[in-house]
Amino acid sequence: MTTGAQSLLRTLLAGGVDVCFANPGTSEMHAVAALDAEPGMRGVLTLFEGVATGAADGYARMAGRPAATLLHLGPGLGNGIANLHNARRAGSGVVNVVGDHATSHAAFDAPLQSDIASLAGPVSGWVRHTAGPADVAADAAEAVAAARSGRVATLVLPADASWGDGAADRPAPVPAAPEPGRGNPEARSAAAAALRSGEPCLLLLGGDATRTDGLDAAGRIAAATGARVLVETFPARLERGAGVVAADRLAYLPDAATQQLAGTRHLVLVGARSPVAFFGYPGRRGDLVPEGCHVHEVAGRADAAAAALAELAADVAPDATAPVAALRRPPLPTGPLRVDTAADVVGALLPEGAIVVDEANTSGLTLPSATAGAPRHDWLCLTGGAIGWGLPAATGAAIACPDRPVWCLQADGSAMYTISALWTHAREGLDVTTVVYNNAAYAILRLELAAVGIDGSGGSAARSLLDLDRPRLDFVAVATGMGVPATRAETAEELAAALAKAAAEPGPHLVEAMVPPLVP
Amino acid sequence: MTTGAQSLLRTLLAGGVDVCFANPGTSEMHAVAALDAEPGMRGVLTLFEGVATGAADGYARMAGRPAATLLHLGPGLGNGIANLHNARRAGSGVVNVVGDHATSHAAFDAPLQSDIASLAGPVSGWVRHTAGPADVAADAAEAVAAARSGRVATLVLPADASWGDGAADRPAPVPAAPEPGRGNPEARSAAAAALRSGEPCLLLLGGDATRTDGLDAAGRIAAATGARVLVETFPARLERGAGVVAADRLAYLPDAATQQLAGTRHLVLVGARSPVAFFGYPGRRGDLVPEGCHVHEVAGRADAAAAALAELAADVAPDATAPVAALRRPPLPTGPLRVDTAADVVGALLPEGAIVVDEANTSGLTLPSATAGAPRHDWLCLTGGAIGWGLPAATGAAIACPDRPVWCLQADGSAMYTISALWTHAREGLDVTTVVYNNAAYAILRLELAAVGIDGSGGSAARSLLDLDRPRLDFVAVATGMGVPATRAETAEELAAALAKAAAEPGPHLVEAMVPPLVP
Repeated sequence: MTTGAQSLLRTLLAGGVDVCFANPGTSEMHAVAALDAEPGMRGVLTLFEGVATGAADGYARMAGRPAATLLHLGPGLGNGIANLHNARRAGSGVVNVVGDHATSHAAFDAPLQSDIASLAGPVSGWVRHTAGPADVAADAAEAVAAARSGRVATLVLPADASWGDGAADRPAPVPAAPEPGRGNPEARSAAAAALRSGEPCLLLLGGDATRTDGLDAAGRIAAATGARVLVETFPARLERGAGVVAADRLAYLPDAATQQLAGTRHLVLVGARSPVAFFGYPGRRGDLVPEGCHVHEVAGRADAAAAALAELAADVAPDATAPVAALRRPPLPTGPLRVDTAADVVGALLPEGAIVVDEANTSGLTLPSATAGAPRHDWLCLTGGAIGWGLPAATGAAIACPDRPVWCLQADGSAMYTISALWTHAREGLDVTTVVYNNAAYAILRLELAAVGIDGSGGSAARSLLDLDRPRLDFVAVATGMGVPATRAETAEELAAALAKAAAEPGPHLVEAMVPPLVP
Repeated sequence: MTTGAQSLLRTLLAGGVDVCFANPGTSEMHAVAALDAEPGMRGVLTLFEGVATGAADGYARMAGRPAATLLHLGPGLGNGIANLHNARRAGSGVVNVVGDHATSHAAFDAPLQSDIASLAGPVSGWVRHTAGPADVAADAAEAVAAARSGRVATLVLPADASWGDGAADRPAPVPAAPEPGRGNPEARSAAAAALRSGEPCLLLLGGDATRTDGLDAAGRIAAATGARVLVETFPARLERGAGVVAADRLAYLPDAATQQLAGTRHLVLVGARSPVAFFGYPGRRGDLVPEGCHVHEVAGRADAAAAALAELAADVAPDATAPVAALRRPPLPTGPLRVDTAADVVGALLPEGAIVVDEANTSGLTLPSATAGAPRHDWLCLTGGAIGWGLPAATGAAIACPDRPVWCLQADGSAMYTISALWTHAREGLDVTTVVYNNAAYAILRLELAAVGIDGSGGSAARSLLDLDRPRLDFVAVATGMGVPATRAETAEELAAALAKAAAEPGPHLVEAMVPPLVP
């Protein structure tokens, strides 16, 4: 007598999925109850589905294997969509389990009934509606396989498939994931020729080419050929700091990105997509590739990009060595807190082996330079642009890597989308230090208002939709209310003291960094 | 030179839509800027899209006309889906404006690109992707018409349709909404015969039959024929209190609902759907209509239900009068706060003309009886079952009815989904008094765990996913951090004092009512 819910858990566990970020409801009660029957799965309660899905994204990026979610029907999936979008753009595998009404109940169009498949499609690389208990194991195994290949795999589980018995006793074997592609050999040959030609070449790295090995290969190519190296604007996981080959990221703002790319004659894409503007703007090109520049896609996003890059390096730079970043922290600044001084404090204190979850937005402008010489660390970015990702992703990263400190560098407006993640930080005792940059504005939108061609910074009605003052949020109070110890920093000294204290104590902390907005 | 954004606002304003709940991003910057060029539209900033969509629902229920939203691309729409689901189930009209990438930018599959239409479909009764500036006025006018007929009308507006000129100078006329149906005359005749037969009849009311006129007609029919009257479980807007004909609601739990419906020989549906269980349960019927009971659908949800009911009353109860509820408040209780004493405090103090937004869930069990004799008020319910609706709906109700006090009776777990609505309460100075029932549990799920047939209350792993302790949320701190004055009540006296103080002061307040969970 094995229920579908038990069968689900057994197959997930056998497939190496042993964390479930859950925000369940009635239709998921049997899956919840099965947690006691099938020990080994860590259920992590979140207070909002967007926290669960963002946590699964952060987990996948750091663990290198998928976690599961447990969401409640269409509206619960809806709440999780924004961070599933980010996960999809990151190539993070997620076993996204969505409970549904019992099959016999669907005909009644009960209040919570909705078209789950239509909601799931845009964020999923794999969707399955399980027919009954006997199908759960095989469907779950396929979901695990899809997630292992970097996809959001949405498994819609009707309540009766969960509570019914007749399910397989044994876990279904997870189908082998296809080997990632090795990239395009012809493009690699063309890129090699270009790199040897002496013409201006630029390597743009994404996917797994932004990890140490890929960066080393890129650095060797650069050393041997003079090519420049950039990392895509929002890498899923960038390894950096002392001992790692350093590479700047392509800028977010199209003017700055255009400057970085100017003069490039050969753009070599390795795990990165061809650069485009984040948004379209009146009268401007969206494609950022310079006119007349040749694009060589050596490896796509889903390919083994680092391996392809290593082959390219073996070809064009067999004897080169790549210079790595030296350990060089900025001195601890003093005085009023600003975006730049706050970044220097982070650079001065970032611990060895830290995981940085970066949703600092405009308040993070100088973070990359300030931390370039910090001890080795990972840097996770907002891949899909859907804000409200940082606090949830930090949750998942901390659960994936319990021995590493997580620093969540978080803009204020974005923080409010999924603020309840702080409660999960507290419940799970996660070693997450959150810095909320409180500039009382959607400062990025002040930039964008100008970028789309609106004079000045808009009138008062427009302006009021971009400001977060009246009242100014008090993140110390909010965090305290969710069980996370918090302090406010008005000066660089106060920020340094608060971060040092957070690093010295176990469990989560929040520091509210009061900074003027980058755009007044 | 009229831009699409200006054309949008002109048409909305001419169509009587003058409130926009907005959470905009880059692709909506021209719409934001147009707020200064086209005064008259009140832009209300929310910090999360689910607040914007829930506010539009609450607004429509109380204003009787639609508000607009302004959401950012697919992920922003995703965040708004849960409360659009509730709006759809309530029959609340919403002009749901979703910005999209500029048309020329769509080809680039930029990071925020997604399939907006697929996300919009399940929650919308009308969807349009506007082709260009010249189409904005006509599309917006159609959206207003659809919203006026009680639908969520999703207008997807590419950024270039918004910033481009060549749009119509004048607002497009809003097509006349079709007259609501008058119901089914044959069913009405059959219902009349049944009501005259002396057999046990039950009127189940929904739609606009839950307002004063409909309740009066139902009361007259009951007085003349002995029929019983119930209101659907979660009415969108129920008028009640002293001077209004009282009617109980159909219970949420299927056992209780089955008891209420037992013995009914003729079920007369007037604006309500045939009763079904909220969820399916193992081995239980989902259809709650008693065996052998005849169902007469006199008016559907979208029909003019109150008018159909008035005709039925004119037929079977031409001379009857309906008894109305007397003013009879419970005495102010004393001692420890519990679900029942907290409800009595609300019943004792609810102001004349209050709008009650009810997402109290299990902590609201005795609220209906405790408030039945309070001065006349409106009661808004969670129509679609997607939690995280109360605080946003209260936002919209308060903006729709600035002269009426709004009492938002809010469960703790549900509150956390859209907690940032409190900030909008503060910014807009809304007369919203929020009572958060802090029982440190998803208590409803403890009930449901038992209802689906799981012995006891589950093991410790299951139990930990239903509890909100470790740490216990401190809603006073959270509210204070968002600018809403807040106090904690541990006793009935403290709750009464806090509510009296809130009623005496302008602007928002929050009272954290510490109650034991209904299910330990």
